[in-house]
Amino acid sequence: MADQGCINLRAAHALLAGLIQGGMRDLVLSPGSRSTPLVLAAQAHDLRMFPILDERSAAFFALGLARAARRPVGVLCTSGSALGHWYPAVIEADCSGAPLILLSADRPPELRHWGANQTIDQTRFFGVHVRAFYDPGPPDELPGVGKYLRALGRRAAAECQGLDPGPVHLNLPFRESLVPGPDCRLSPSEDPPLIPAATWPNDEGAQAQYPRIDQDVSPYPFIGDDIHLNLGDLGQLGRRGLICCGPGEWTKSGSAALWRLAERLRLPVLCDPLSGLRFGPGSDAGIVRYDALLRYPELAQGLKPDWVIRFGRAPVSKRLNDWLTGVPTLLVEPGRRFSDPTHDVPLKIQADPGRFCAWAMTTDACPIQADEGWLEGWNEVEQRLERLMADYLSQAPWCEGHLVRTLIACLPAGEGLLCANSLPIRQLDLWSGSRRLPLHVFGNRGASGIDGQASTLAGFNASGLPTTGLLGDLSLWHDLSGLLQLRGCPRPCIVINNGGGRIFDTLPQRNLPSLERFWRCPIPLALGPLTQAFGLSHWEVADGTELVQALTEAQGVQGVLIEVRVDAELSLEVHRGLEKVLQSTHP
Amino acid sequence: MADQGCINLRAAHALLAGLIQGGMRDLVLSPGSRSTPLVLAAQAHDLRMFPILDERSAAFFALGLARAARRPVGVLCTSGSALGHWYPAVIEADCSGAPLILLSADRPPELRHWGANQTIDQTRFFGVHVRAFYDPGPPDELPGVGKYLRALGRRAAAECQGLDPGPVHLNLPFRESLVPGPDCRLSPSEDPPLIPAATWPNDEGAQAQYPRIDQDVSPYPFIGDDIHLNLGDLGQLGRRGLICCGPGEWTKSGSAALWRLAERLRLPVLCDPLSGLRFGPGSDAGIVRYDALLRYPELAQGLKPDWVIRFGRAPVSKRLNDWLTGVPTLLVEPGRRFSDPTHDVPLKIQADPGRFCAWAMTTDACPIQADEGWLEGWNEVEQRLERLMADYLSQAPWCEGHLVRTLIACLPAGEGLLCANSLPIRQLDLWSGSRRLPLHVFGNRGASGIDGQASTLAGFNASGLPTTGLLGDLSLWHDLSGLLQLRGCPRPCIVINNGGGRIFDTLPQRNLPSLERFWRCPIPLALGPLTQAFGLSHWEVADGTELVQALTEAQGVQGVLIEVRVDAELSLEVHRGLEKVLQSTHP
Repeated sequence: MADQGCINLRAAHALLAGLIQGGMRDLVLSPGSRSTPLVLAAQAHDLRMFPILDERSAAFFALGLARAARRPVGVLCTSGSALGHWYPAVIEADCSGAPLILLSADRPPELRHWGANQTIDQTRFFGVHVRAFYDPGPPDELPGVGKYLRALGRRAAAECQGLDPGPVHLNLPFRESLVPGPDCRLSPSEDPPLIPAATWPNDEGAQAQYPRIDQDVSPYPFIGDDIHLNLGDLGQLGRRGLICCGPGEWTKSGSAALWRLAERLRLPVLCDPLSGLRFGPGSDAGIVRYDALLRYPELAQGLKPDWVIRFGRAPVSKRLNDWLTGVPTLLVEPGRRFSDPTHDVPLKIQADPGRFCAWAMTTDACPIQADEGWLEGWNEVEQRLERLMADYLSQAPWCEGHLVRTLIACLPAGEGLLCANSLPIRQLDLWSGSRRLPLHVFGNRGASGIDGQASTLAGFNASGLPTTGLLGDLSLWHDLSGLLQLRGCPRPCIVINNGGGRIFDTLPQRNLPSLERFWRCPIPLALGPLTQAFGLSHWEVADGTELVQALTEAQGVQGVLIEVRVDAELSLEVHRGLEKVLQSTHP
Repeated sequence: MADQGCINLRAAHALLAGLIQGGMRDLVLSPGSRSTPLVLAAQAHDLRMFPILDERSAAFFALGLARAARRPVGVLCTSGSALGHWYPAVIEADCSGAPLILLSADRPPELRHWGANQTIDQTRFFGVHVRAFYDPGPPDELPGVGKYLRALGRRAAAECQGLDPGPVHLNLPFRESLVPGPDCRLSPSEDPPLIPAATWPNDEGAQAQYPRIDQDVSPYPFIGDDIHLNLGDLGQLGRRGLICCGPGEWTKSGSAALWRLAERLRLPVLCDPLSGLRFGPGSDAGIVRYDALLRYPELAQGLKPDWVIRFGRAPVSKRLNDWLTGVPTLLVEPGRRFSDPTHDVPLKIQADPGRFCAWAMTTDACPIQADEGWLEGWNEVEQRLERLMADYLSQAPWCEGHLVRTLIACLPAGEGLLCANSLPIRQLDLWSGSRRLPLHVFGNRGASGIDGQASTLAGFNASGLPTTGLLGDLSLWHDLSGLLQLRGCPRPCIVINNGGGRIFDTLPQRNLPSLERFWRCPIPLALGPLTQAFGLSHWEVADGTELVQALTEAQGVQGVLIEVRVDAELSLEVHRGLEKVLQSTHP
């Protein structure tokens, strides 16, 4: 009788071989029985493996790893409700375009819908939130099955990258036994040798099914001369244009092309904190204080543009989004995404931003003439705001502004910063300024959830990019499992402890009598004992000097959580004071 | 201009009014902005509200509450990835038939698919895992909208109960503003008064759309005389029949009817630990030591039945399932479920088990004559095993057997016990015995996940049923957020700490070289500091005397976690020793 355990192992091995050919190097796995053939095959392939008990934390960890490494990362779990825990991270990966390979083990078809243990319907489990779903059925010994599974692995790896990167779900049923007998041998590959990666068609060709991803090559094919667009058309709308760069990714050559284009067209470039353009060479040409500027209504009115070229998603700043509502916008965005919540985009160009900029520089179609003094006016306001905000902060009591400025000044060149949603990202937006030293700032800004921040941070660090975290207290409490993963992190996780969801202090809910109980929802426990229980170091910081010291001492120490207490009421006053200063000072 | 905040509030209020008419009394909610109208409406209705930060924990809490209270429980969260966290509990509710009302706030259609913040596609978000999905669209002021939403609420509450209880998903988009202005008043209901609950058609009628659920009335209509079944047919298969009661629920009158039927037919009744039949009046007639019995192959062979009547799901015991494979089985199960993983059911009767038993007693169609001595043989073996296992355990070193027997002896009459999956439920199965004092034993045995146990336990306790937890260490680590909810629990959570997933020590994976790293996955942290960080009391217990003392002292103390250390290697030896004793002793 055939050794079904061996048949399972060979199938799993073939599938993983294809995934590895497609670029997968890491597997984040949660324990279970049904997934055994895949775990054994992963060991045989010498994949880098990260066992994480809680599948939710595992998937966010994989998300961070995939976003930092920019290649497919596998997530593996057993059958049943286990894969349900992946859903939040799958949604974020879907929205933010992270290449996750979701490998769920399953029971075979004859057990599904018959009340068998740990058996649920896993078919199309993540609905529209994955790029593709495949279920190859239980492994058997038919001819060509190994070839098929290798091809499926390559294909899944390609489909999670490509034009619309995102998660791909492979549901993998196995019949028992799950452990192979002692005589089981992996058969040699039946495949012809693969075309070496170096000679694959590059990503400008139509055949770029398996794009090679490196630091300076965009994963998106450029549509090139097919664009029926004369940028001069924008000029018809007026001579005051703006480039708005929302959350997104730029290659080195891409951002260089952007800055060249902006200079040639004399256009101000508004840089979102997650645009990748605030921190690094050329960033001093960007406008980064618009969220402060727009608190001054007359100035905001005077600088309103006639049109916008937008790269990346809708920006973080609600003020900026509101201000740009109604302004005709040319959206440059790869893939199927259409980031236009205000419905102001008459034309979307489906292209990589960097390649679009390079093309716009070389085409004759680009004779936009900005108003005399338009760019200069923006730059002047930006510089005044820079001084004004620094002066104001120097006299204000300790708040997130000091924290953000200190952090941006201190973080080593080329490292990462993961910023949580809600208040932290908005504080970063307002206060970060810019710097010439590169810094990779990330946020889970696809679905903008409170969730998975600590686990994502650990995933970034596992990729080899040292990444510091900036979280709120509720974010941390929401991802307690993530604390288990922070232990090995070479960079600290900074937690702004201001007593719950203080974003609601800035929203209309602030006047509701049950604000504390149903919106702020503070957790009445101390971070100190919690971090100790998880084997983390807990440092408390009360001002800028202590923060600098803590960041310096944390270099190279694993598992440090830096708690920064902020008095939320005082912070609200500081921010209200800034508005008054802005409105009373003609910048 | 109309106050959209007020329109939203009125719509939310009408929907909740319908849900309340349908039996919903509790709302478990996680903080967010978009869900504000529903939170305000719930306050106006004076619903019992449980704010829980982590949506995953919130949903499991609601699951426990719904299962204990046997009425619809609402779960509420904001838009985006938030509702993704519900998925594991939704799956369990789907599989185990718990009436959850999933209320997800959403952005309006004009923002979906346009890159708006915290906006994802929430349509049919839980796929086939909910009973129904509705999206009534953003609230407006059209005539009849309040009536429609009240009707929708009543309908959802009915659909989550009924023949196939389970989760129902209401996706609820709201336009801004979310907080009503100061002049907003809730309009009086336009509805005619509801038919009072007491006069609703009872659940025997075909119109039982809104079943009244109390302690002694089954929620399932009985199909009665439509059954074209002559129970005598079973007699054709042989004279050795068996009643097998898997995990399920019995009403008081239902279980009384079962015991009467079993006595009349002279059939042994095998009672799963989750059947509800091991603990309470009549339970001493049941067979509960089959998992031990089946470790003795010759005896197992000799007692093999000719046919089985099964109530409830497939039993927990793998030995029992294997042993019954191939035996023709009459399955009595309400709703669409078909619990037959071994495909041995030629006939399923869609009926409430208790009503089936009552019917079988009154019909002439039931002249089954069991073999002389068949039932007596079973009872004799059961009694011998009872003595033998007690004797064996009295001389064995401390293990789960002592723990389970002490626990079952100590728990107050009428209280609850929630037992986690994997090893704890199997240990309970093997060692629990039975008792005449009632005890409600529960398990999340629908999808049998490791997940959400602490949160579910807190939900049971919140229902007013004092419920003790029996978890493994990994279960607890998997649901760290649940520790936040345990603080208010009036009954302790017992944690068997045996160093990770020891179920794998009993499976074929036990010989794999990477057993520890990829399967057992122990968490190398201490429970003591962890529980202290969460404000829980941590008591350690090393033997039966200490356990009795701890259980006594824990009565009325909130937030107690009792850690019971078990030496996994020693425990394995004890269990192997039991098999040897069983096989060498002719019972």
